[in-house]
This record gives sequence, structure tokens and C-alpha cells, in this order.
Amino acid sequence: LDYQHVQVPFEITLWIMLASLAKIGFHLYNKLPSVVPESCLLIFVGLIMGGIIYGFNDRSPPVMDSDIFFLYLLPPIVLDAGYFMPSRPFFENIGTILLYAVVGTIWNVFGIGFSLYGICQVKSFRLQDVSLLHNLLFGSLIAAVDPVAVLAVFEEIHVNEKLHILVFGESLLNDAVTVVLYKLFRSFCEMPTIKSVDVFAGIGKFFVVGLGGVLVGLSFGLTAAFTTRFTKDIRVIEPLFVFLYSYLSYLTAEMFHLSGIVAIISCAMGMKRYVEANISLKSHTTVKYFMKMWSSVSDTLIFIFLGVSTIGENHEWNWPYICFTVIFCLVWRALGVLVLTFLVNRFHVNTITSKDQFIIAYGGLRGAICFSLVFLLPDFHRKKLFIAATTVVILFTVFVQGMTIRPLVDLLAVKRKRESAPTVGEQIHIRFLDHLLAGIEDISGHWGQYYWKDKLEYFNSKYLQKILLREYDQPKSSIVLLYEKLERKHAMELAQAGQLGHSLAHPSFLCSAFLCSSSDRTVITDQKLEDTPNPDVLDNMQEILARNLYRIRRTGPAYNRHTLPGDSEPTERAKEILILRHKSL
Amino acid sequence: LDYQHVQVPFEITLWIMLASLAKIGFHLYNKLPSVVPESCLLIFVGLIMGGIIYGFNDRSPPVMDSDIFFLYLLPPIVLDAGYFMPSRPFFENIGTILLYAVVGTIWNVFGIGFSLYGICQVKSFRLQDVSLLHNLLFGSLIAAVDPVAVLAVFEEIHVNEKLHILVFGESLLNDAVTVVLYKLFRSFCEMPTIKSVDVFAGIGKFFVVGLGGVLVGLSFGLTAAFTTRFTKDIRVIEPLFVFLYSYLSYLTAEMFHLSGIVAIISCAMGMKRYVEANISLKSHTTVKYFMKMWSSVSDTLIFIFLGVSTIGENHEWNWPYICFTVIFCLVWRALGVLVLTFLVNRFHVNTITSKDQFIIAYGGLRGAICFSLVFLLPDFHRKKLFIAATTVVILFTVFVQGMTIRPLVDLLAVKRKRESAPTVGEQIHIRFLDHLLAGIEDISGHWGQYYWKDKLEYFNSKYLQKILLREYDQPKSSIVLLYEKLERKHAMELAQAGQLGHSLAHPSFLCSAFLCSSSDRTVITDQKLEDTPNPDVLDNMQEILARNLYRIRRTGPAYNRHTLPGDSEPTERAKEILILRHKSL
Repeated sequence: LDYQHVQVPFEITLWIMLASLAKIGFHLYNKLPSVVPESCLLIFVGLIMGGIIYGFNDRSPPVMDSDIFFLYLLPPIVLDAGYFMPSRPFFENIGTILLYAVVGTIWNVFGIGFSLYGICQVKSFRLQDVSLLHNLLFGSLIAAVDPVAVLAVFEEIHVNEKLHILVFGESLLNDAVTVVLYKLFRSFCEMPTIKSVDVFAGIGKFFVVGLGGVLVGLSFGLTAAFTTRFTKDIRVIEPLFVFLYSYLSYLTAEMFHLSGIVAIISCAMGMKRYVEANISLKSHTTVKYFMKMWSSVSDTLIFIFLGVSTIGENHEWNWPYICFTVIFCLVWRALGVLVLTFLVNRFHVNTITSKDQFIIAYGGLRGAICFSLVFLLPDFHRKKLFIAATTVVILFTVFVQGMTIRPLVDLLAVKRKRESAPTVGEQIHIRFLDHLLAGIEDISGHWGQYYWKDKLEYFNSKYLQKILLREYDQPKSSIVLLYEKLERKHAMELAQAGQLGHSLAHPSFLCSAFLCSSSDRTVITDQKLEDTPNPDVLDNMQEILARNLYRIRRTGPAYNRHTLPGDSEPTERAKEILILRHKSL
Repeated sequence: LDYQHVQVPFEITLWIMLASLAKIGFHLYNKLPSVVPESCLLIFVGLIMGGIIYGFNDRSPPVMDSDIFFLYLLPPIVLDAGYFMPSRPFFENIGTILLYAVVGTIWNVFGIGFSLYGICQVKSFRLQDVSLLHNLLFGSLIAAVDPVAVLAVFEEIHVNEKLHILVFGESLLNDAVTVVLYKLFRSFCEMPTIKSVDVFAGIGKFFVVGLGGVLVGLSFGLTAAFTTRFTKDIRVIEPLFVFLYSYLSYLTAEMFHLSGIVAIISCAMGMKRYVEANISLKSHTTVKYFMKMWSSVSDTLIFIFLGVSTIGENHEWNWPYICFTVIFCLVWRALGVLVLTFLVNRFHVNTITSKDQFIIAYGGLRGAICFSLVFLLPDFHRKKLFIAATTVVILFTVFVQGMTIRPLVDLLAVKRKRESAPTVGEQIHIRFLDHLLAGIEDISGHWGQYYWKDKLEYFNSKYLQKILLREYDQPKSSIVLLYEKLERKHAMELAQAGQLGHSLAHPSFLCSAFLCSSSDRTVITDQKLEDTPNPDVLDNMQEILARNLYRIRRTGPAYNRHTLPGDSEPTERAKEILILRHKSL
């Protein structure tokens, strides 16, 4: 027997196997996961395993290595999150998300830090040796909402898209703030005196860390897209590039002390569109599938490790400090959300309701990131107290909040995610409104989000697509594509029913109705819902529509009986619009 | 800048990236790969990189770590090889393959070892201090044909299936022999005296190592199949099990000093059929795609590392020894193939031609396995000589033999792999002959390969499938399925041509022709070849046929006007056949 030789890969494989089997086990009994979130069950499995290890070894089981967490377990989850990020609601709410992520997190850090410092002044608690800086350092690691925990819980409760993206987006983007504040306070702790220059340098650093992350991510993302232009002859390594470049963006950002999470998300969001167009369908299935698989395994491992690491003798149980930490985390988050939402609602038509505010505040789960950060603290005499407080906060948020949020969502009747995908008619209307609003913004000279979206789309089709896409040619009209798709599907159905040759009027009727007027929406959608029980087909259609309909605005108006298609000059029209705006300004 | 922190994953990612980019680079210029095999190009890239590292650092570049090779780079390639192994030609030629792999390898080891010992006796070569045991040890590591090198070259030259499986199967199965002989001689080198007991123990060990590997692999493979029964609700982690169980089988075998290569191949071949039936189509695409991707990257890395490791000061250039090693490797292999093929041809109707023999002998490429084994040798004063000789043999076989084998195959007009997949008619005939031969063997009481195949199939459908498959029900008749498929395809074509509703006679004519008689083969196949330019569709059809046609033998004869389908009793018929055989015996 030569165990030493294969130990490392053997144990890694066994851990992954355990995680996968635990996942299968939970899903065999359907009742349990509908009450308790999977994350709680996994932590519970971890606790049991930790207990077993502790019982047999008589010493604390190994804690989750922060390096393993940050270098190997976190990136797949964030990559998955970035790649499958619903970009429309994300960019529509980017302002609110950034406000929560930046101002909200800073608010929480200082709120928790200063009020815990207040608690430390109470003599009977015996905490007078914990300085303000240490409290702020602790605040900086405990304040940040954790994307892994949020994702695990919110994926199961299906709240509406806007609410989901607000909480989840915040949890992702607050990484830049957390990184800066945590490192700032850690270096302050080791400095003899703090000058005001250092404080200003810290504020400047935040922009560097955040924007630097975006820059690193985007450059790797676009390089990845460019690389996949040349993989036509070796399709089989296409998926690799998606993973390699994203991971490199994360590592590069970490290397330069930038925000790795922000980098990998920008990379994934930047590359997605072009990579999808370049790689083969099978490669794309592999990419999507493997990403989901990987993130799901990472997620499982993180929660199991959290459980295992909780057991042991790393804790100092000063109950006042721990209890007040939990209370302050809840209170300051609630206050922060209230104040910030008040500000946001003043500038938006589509306001955030008080129910939504409650769920945003209540959904502020803490997770493995805090846990890894607290173990990365430099050794000082109260580190074990911080570890204990962090553990309790995580377990409280994941177990108590995670388990009660679903009943609360039911009780408050929070608007849920709609079950069905939007119909083709709705898609067309949404697109139509986009163009309308972009036009209004153009004319009124207001440079709003639609204006920027339009500019970006123009830049994309004019330059980026030509560089990054392998076969850049004008796609067919979406209506023609849709018609082809419907006809093909219809033929399939007829063949399956053995009726080939009968009732030919059907698909043509459908499409002629579609071509005639999009206001007859009910006709189409009803028809469509009957015909397409398969959501995949629907998704494809909508994707095609979403991609191509945008071009209608530019190609549509130029058409008349006297010009041939392709004769129109978009630059002239763009100039015309520019002149119009300048006049109005 | 904090490079240390991310160094390990960063460098691994960069190496993989380099490998992938090199692969893309070669394929951009189509002319080069058609002359030089990719493996040579990759070694060349490695040589250049090694030269650069050597030039800048002024010391030998790092050699490929044997642990990394055996634990991380080799398994993906072997898994891929096992999973996509064409099982029919493999099992048809298993006797010949085993003869080449076991007897042939032993022949080569002792041939090369003894004749090199003879060379060492020549005084002017200054090699008298190399003992017989050391020569045999060297023989044991240099004798084995390398699966990675063979695969890389033979995948490009497209020789006929039988020839390919003979060389490739030998290269895989000789691992058991290599492991035993290498470890035996290495321990002999360290023993003061060798008893005859040790030699007999070595021979016994060979069976343990080989059969133990098969056992470990099959048990992990069947467990994997069983596990995938329960993944219906979490499709996303299905691909993981295929990889985890195969890797565990490899590691477990290595842990017990069994043959890891044999284990992982048995695991892959054992699980494939059941896993494919259990997992979703998308999971299966991911498994196949990722396996190919992974093995392709491993392969690339291995050749690049081979090149890098060649540069440096690890070598002792004793030219007589090195040259004679190359010559003996060629001569003993050629002799071995001649003698063994002579034996094989006496017992087979379908003989191995002299052209085939030449290619088998010439295709005995050496690669990274020898290279890793030579670095694993215990330190002794002539290790650098062995390293130099191994390097030269590898480079000679990969460059000279690898580059000339394609022109030689052209020159000798060796039978190539047929371009097109076998037609449905051919498939039916092959199956039909199988059943016929199994029947003849039954009646004549000869327990040949068809008899065993039939028994295995019976055991599989009676027990294994019921345990390992999730939804075990009798599949539809293949003819019905084929008809459905053809009709669906036809409908698609009509829809694409916009002719829905015309020429309906076509698919029914096709299928009625098919149902009427399979001897009208030309009609069907011609028709089919016109209709199905898409090889994927054809593959699927053939898979369905291959799976289901086997059951015809059992379900076919029992049918008559007076019994309902499902009324027949296969056990009774089996008994009947048994009685018949006993009588004939």
C-alpha cells in the first residue's frame, strides 16, 4: 500500500465525491430541501463530519484554507454568476446596486465598527483591550454580504428579477469595497501612527481596485473572444479558453491587489456574447454545463468546509460581544437599506416597495468570504473572539435568516419571478420601448441609459464584432428566421403525429398573423403557448429576436421603393440625429 | 505585486494556455501538420522553450515531474482512450493484443537487456561497470510501446481499424507487464542476492497486477453506473461522476501497486454503456467533449514538457550505448512481431499480412512513460547515461518513425480505414452473422467468442441492466425507431425546402423497402446515402440498430400466429438450446 504517493489527488477526489453524493442524497428525499435550504443541510453535514474528525483525532479538524477558498473554490462560483448574469436588469439597476454595494457597505463597516467599540467600553464585558481599529477591521470583514450564501438561498425562493439582482449584484460588487477597507484597516493596525494622507490614499485606492478589476476583466474577456476566432479547426479545446481566460483575469487581478471578483465578472460578461457566436453549439453546451457543475461543486464544498471548520477549539466565547455583533449586523443593514432606498426612490419612477426593502435587508447573508478573511487576520490576542463572532453571524444568517426567508416571502406576498418566459409579443414590445426611449433621449438631448446602450450597441456592431467574431455577416431578418423555425417545428410535430401532408394552413397562418401586426399579440402568444411546450425552443427564438430586433431601428426607416436594400447610409442618419440633438441643446 | 500568492495556479494556467495556443497555431497553417505530426511540432516547441529557459537561467530547465505525469497528465489520456475504445475490434483481437502486450513486451525487455549487456562487455566502449541487472532494468523501461505517442501518430494516419487496435491495444495493456518488470528489476538491483522464489513471485505478481487492475476498474465502473441511476433531479453534476470514479479507480490501483492504466480502461469500458443510458443527452455531450478536451491538453503538455526536459545537463553521451539501444529497440521489436504474428496467423483465418506486420513493428513508438520511469530510477552512477539513451530513443521514434510512417503507409498501400461509416445494411449483416455464428457455436458445443458474447449479453440484460439502469424497459423495435427517425428527417428536409405536403411517397417507400427485405441492400443504402449527408444522424441510427438488433435472435423465432408478443418464454428456449448442446457433446 502506497498511500502517500496518491494522497493529494485521492483526498481531493474523495471530498468532491462526498459533496456530490451529499447533493444526490438531499434530492432523493424531496421534502427536506423544500423546507431547509441546501446550504443549511450542507453545513449540517459539515458539522457532523467535523464532529467525527474531532472525536477520533482529539484535536480541531483542519479549517478551510483561505488560499484554497480564494484561489480554487470562489472563482468557479463567481464565473458562473457573471456568465449567467441577466444583463438587462443588472444594467438597468446598476446605479442602485452600486449605491448599496459601495455606500451601503461603507455604512455597515463604520456602523458596526463604531457601535461594537461602544460595547467594548462597557466594563463588565471585559473587552476594553479591543481597540477601535480592531473593531473597524472586524466590521470591514463582517459587513459584506456574501455572494455564495445569497445565491444559494435566493436561487431557491424565486423572488422577482429586480429584487434578486439588487441583493445579488450588491453581494458581488461590494468585493472591491471589502478588499480596500479590509486591507486598509489591517495595514493601519500594523502602523504606529496614521496620517490623513493614508486615509485619502485609501479612498483613491477604492477606485483603482474597482475600476482596475473591470479593466483587467474586460481586457481578458475581449482577448478570449478574439482567441476563439481561430478555433474553427479544433473545436474540442474551445471551452478551455473560456475557463482559462476568466481564471487568468481573476488571478491577475488578485496579483495586483485588485478585486478578483469584479475582474472575473467583467471578463465573463464581456466575453459571453462574442464567444457564444464563435464557438460551436456543442462547445457552448459544454461550457454552460461545466460551469454550472463546477460552481455547484464548489458551492457544496464551501458549505461542507464551513461546517467542518466550525467544530474545534478556535473560538473564544465572549457572549456579549458575539450577541451584539449579530444585532448590529441586522440593525445597521436595515437602517442602511432604509436610508439608501429613500434616496433611490426619489430619483426613480419604478420605486422599491417597503416589502422589497425588508427582503433586501433580511437577505444580507454572510458566508465563507467573511470566514476566510477572519482566518487571514494577523495573529493577535483577540483573534479567536473574532473567529467565534464571525462563525455565529454566519450560522445565524444562513440558518435563521436562510430558513425563514422563504416563509416570509410567502407571508408578505413579495412579487415572485414569473413562471413563464416572456412571450415573443412582449419581447417585441420591450424592444420597441427601448428604441422609443433611445429616440426620445436622442431628441431631448438627455444622455440616459438608453442613449448609452444605443451608443454601445453601435460601437459593438461597427468595430468590436468585426474584430472579435469569426464570421461577421449581417444575420437574416429575424422574422424570416422565426418563420423558418416555426415551420420546421411544425413539420416535426406532423411527422411525430404521422400526419405529414395535412393541415398545412397552420404555420403559415401563424406567421402571417405575426407578420401583419404585432398588436394582435394575444393571437400569437396563445397560439404559441399551445405549440411550444418546450422552453428551449422558446429561448432560442427569443434570443434570435433579441439579437436582431435591435437593428430594426437603423435599417427600417431608410427603406423606400427607390432604394435597394444595403443602399442606405447609416452614418448619414447618425449625423442627422447628431445635428438634431445639437440644435435642441 | 503579490506573485507568490497566486504562483501555482497562475503558472499551471499559463502552461495550459501555452499548450492550447500552440495547438491553435499549428492548425492555422494547414500545410505543416499534414507533413509533420503534431507531437513532433510540440516537442519542437518544448525544445525551443527549454532552450530559452536554459539560456536565461544558465541551469537546466525543470524536468517533467514523474508524479505530475503519472497522477495528473496520464489519466485523462487513458480515460479518453478507454471511453472511446472501439469495443468490437478490441474484443475480437483481444488474444492477439494480449500476446503482443505480454509475450512481446517480455521478449523485448530480455532481448534488449541481454544484448545491451553484450555491448557492455566490449572493452573499448568503457561500459563494463553496467551490470546485467541494470541493463535489464533499462530494458524494462525502454521496451514498452507508449500509448500517448502511438495515439498521437496513429490518429493522424488512419490505418485500418484492426491494425490500429493491435498497436494501440498493445501499448495500453503492456502497462501491467512494464509495471511488474520495472519494479521487479528495481528491487532486484537493491537486493544483495536473488532467490528463485523472487522470480516466481514476480511471475505471479504479473497476474495480480493485471487482473487486479481489471477488477478495481470494473468495480468502480459499475458503482459509477449505479450512482448515475439517482441523478435524475440534479443533471448538472452527472458528468462529474464519470470523471471522479474513473480517476478514483486509477488512484486506487496505483495505491495498491496495480496497473492504473488497465484499471481506468476497464472502468471506462465497464461504465460507458450504462452511464450513457442514465445521464441526459447534454450531460453526455459534456462528458465526451470534456474528455476529449482534457486528453488533448494533457497530450499537448506532455509533448511540450518532453521537449523542455530534453534540454539541459542531465545526460551522459556514451554514443555506442545510445546507438545500440536504438538499433536493438528496432531489431528486437521487428523480430518479436515476426515470431508472434507467425504464431497468431497459424490459428486465424483472417491473417495479419506482412505489410501490417511491418507497420506494427514500425509503429512501436516510445514516449513519456519511459521518460518518467527513467527519472524515477534510484540514483546510481550511470543514471545519466540511461536518461540520455531514453531521450534519444524517444526523439528517434517520435521524429524519424513518426514522420516517415505516413509516407510508408502510402507507399506500401496499407489498407486504410474506410472513410464512410458502415451502412445500415452492412450493420444488419454483421449482426446477422454474429447471431448465426453464436448459434453454430451453441450447436457445435464450441465455446468461442460469440458464445461468450452471447452469454454476457444475456447476463447483462437479465441482471446488470435491471440494477444499473434507471428506466429499464424494453426498447421499441429498432425498425419502428428507424422508421420514425427517417420520417422525422424527411419532414425536416421538406420543411427546409419549403415543400411540405409534396412527395409523401418517399419515406414510406424507403421504409417499406427496408421492412420487406434486408437483401435489397443496395436500394436502401443508395437511397440513404443520398438522404443523409449528416454523419451524426447516421451514427445515432446505427447506435440504435446496434443496440436493439441483438435481441432479434431471442424474440424473433418464438413468434407465431398463435402467441401474443411477450408470451414467449426465453428461458425455455435457452434450456432447449442447452439440451441440444449436451446431446451434441
